[in-house]
Amino acid sequence: MKAVIYTPTEPVVASWVERLRALLPDWSINAMTDEDDPESVRYAVVWRPRTGDIARFPNLKAVVSIGAGIDHVLADAELPRHLPIIRTVGADLTQFMREYVALHVLRHHRNRPHQAAAQARAEWDAVEVPPAPQRRVGVMGLGNLGAAAAQTLAGLGFRTVGWARNPREIDGVMCYSGAAGFDAFLEGTEILVNLLPLTEETKGILNAETFGKLPEGACIINAARGAHLLEEDLLAALESGQVSQATLDVFNVEPLPFGHPFWSHPAITVTPHIASRIDSATGSRIIAANLETFEKTGTVKDLADSVRGY
Amino acid sequence: MKAVIYTPTEPVVASWVERLRALLPDWSINAMTDEDDPESVRYAVVWRPRTGDIARFPNLKAVVSIGAGIDHVLADAELPRHLPIIRTVGADLTQFMREYVALHVLRHHRNRPHQAAAQARAEWDAVEVPPAPQRRVGVMGLGNLGAAAAQTLAGLGFRTVGWARNPREIDGVMCYSGAAGFDAFLEGTEILVNLLPLTEETKGILNAETFGKLPEGACIINAARGAHLLEEDLLAALESGQVSQATLDVFNVEPLPFGHPFWSHPAITVTPHIASRIDSATGSRIIAANLETFEKTGTVKDLADSVRGY
Repeated sequence: MKAVIYTPTEPVVASWVERLRALLPDWSINAMTDEDDPESVRYAVVWRPRTGDIARFPNLKAVVSIGAGIDHVLADAELPRHLPIIRTVGADLTQFMREYVALHVLRHHRNRPHQAAAQARAEWDAVEVPPAPQRRVGVMGLGNLGAAAAQTLAGLGFRTVGWARNPREIDGVMCYSGAAGFDAFLEGTEILVNLLPLTEETKGILNAETFGKLPEGACIINAARGAHLLEEDLLAALESGQVSQATLDVFNVEPLPFGHPFWSHPAITVTPHIASRIDSATGSRIIAANLETFEKTGTVKDLADSVRGY
Repeated sequence: MKAVIYTPTEPVVASWVERLRALLPDWSINAMTDEDDPESVRYAVVWRPRTGDIARFPNLKAVVSIGAGIDHVLADAELPRHLPIIRTVGADLTQFMREYVALHVLRHHRNRPHQAAAQARAEWDAVEVPPAPQRRVGVMGLGNLGAAAAQTLAGLGFRTVGWARNPREIDGVMCYSGAAGFDAFLEGTEILVNLLPLTEETKGILNAETFGKLPEGACIINAARGAHLLEEDLLAALESGQVSQATLDVFNVEPLPFGHPFWSHPAITVTPHIASRIDSATGSRIIAANLETFEKTGTVKDLADSVRGY
């Protein structure tokens, strides 16, 4: 069986090729750009493919996204829409996201930015905050990553609420769903964490209207996709005080361009898309197993719905 | 029944007096400095009493520490050594400490100091770290606060080890004990959290020898007492790279004096004794209940051992 691999960075492609060859010795694995017999290829394993990259292979059975999201695959306007897309979700990806969300929710909860500024002035300035059970924290998006993040926050003692498109039940997390549940979810949520998939419906969901439904001085954490956030709306909400602080891991353009106002904004923490990642060692094991399972059974647990968009 | 209250700050004393009077309407509650009939007083409720403050009351049945530690009471050289000391331990105190330890362990684990410095330079510089299950974190001191902190870290996925004077068993935490277990506890511990009680045995335990038994580049978090740490040893260990970062909440002199090298050290995070606190609303309920129980039964669950020192 034959698979090809594409990522935007050549050494990264080489690393994936090497690892998948070792794990699937009976398969033929090539870098996409090295493949000169496109008709023979059955699987394309990709991160941020370029437009037309996938359509060039007429006999694909499935596309594998190197990541939990599939928006970077759907962004290819020439993508053959009938193709199943296999997501890559693993224990490490979930673990890293749990850590990132716990860290940054705790940072905002205990007002680390204020405390760090006080240290810079050599001022012994204790900020009093309520204990976590009196702090309402909301997670938007309750897929693998969002559900794990919400449970972690509940485990730390936060009054945790969640919101997803469809009804969900998670121990210790009050869940809201759909457009009808959105306002009730936002009401009283002091720290809002976005882990939604990026779809036509969720694009720009972090906007002035959403911010306006949170309590004044709320904090925003975006660890999903840059396009979820309307950047100008965040800057205006920080200016007005409706939002007091934000932590952003994802951006419309990555790397975040030098000179972008987010870099030096005193109320914005920028992290370079590190919330969660799949390294090729772990990821290649997950992808190899998914390729073998799909080849045998025609499906896998982590199959995305390309109409739904995640 | 009569009790008197002392804290170093007058408005704080007034707040405790008011709350305890409301909770114990049949008792007589006064600020220590207002009490002119010392022989009639049976309980002294104190935070950092001055030398001789307690000995002035000849008929005390017990001393109440406003806090989990009793070192600030034992520091009084004239303290009548026969007096039982009641510790004040509550859900909030434990919750706050869980949050503080989780936040700062995650900060060091994900190398926030590096990431924050990269943002200051507008550099998209992703630091790769292992997931928490590959990070060994050690908690010294497994009393109410230490045990809760260790369990919280285990819940976040860290490979968590603990060390205490006597053997302990905590789910998900590998526990070492006594002098015999100290080296094995330190070996491989990349992030060391100190929550020990301050006693003659634990004074200065964060010293060059201890640091030398950790892996190179370890991180230190001290949220117990300033006297646990030899300040010069920490500065030398940061200089040599044996310790890479430290977060300190407690100091030999508090507030930490202006001009102290910790304030501006790039590898030291200073927080102003905020890891955990008892507010008078919650604390007065716990203390009122302990006073009533002690008066009725002659003991309470949170009785300290003044010989042991905690």
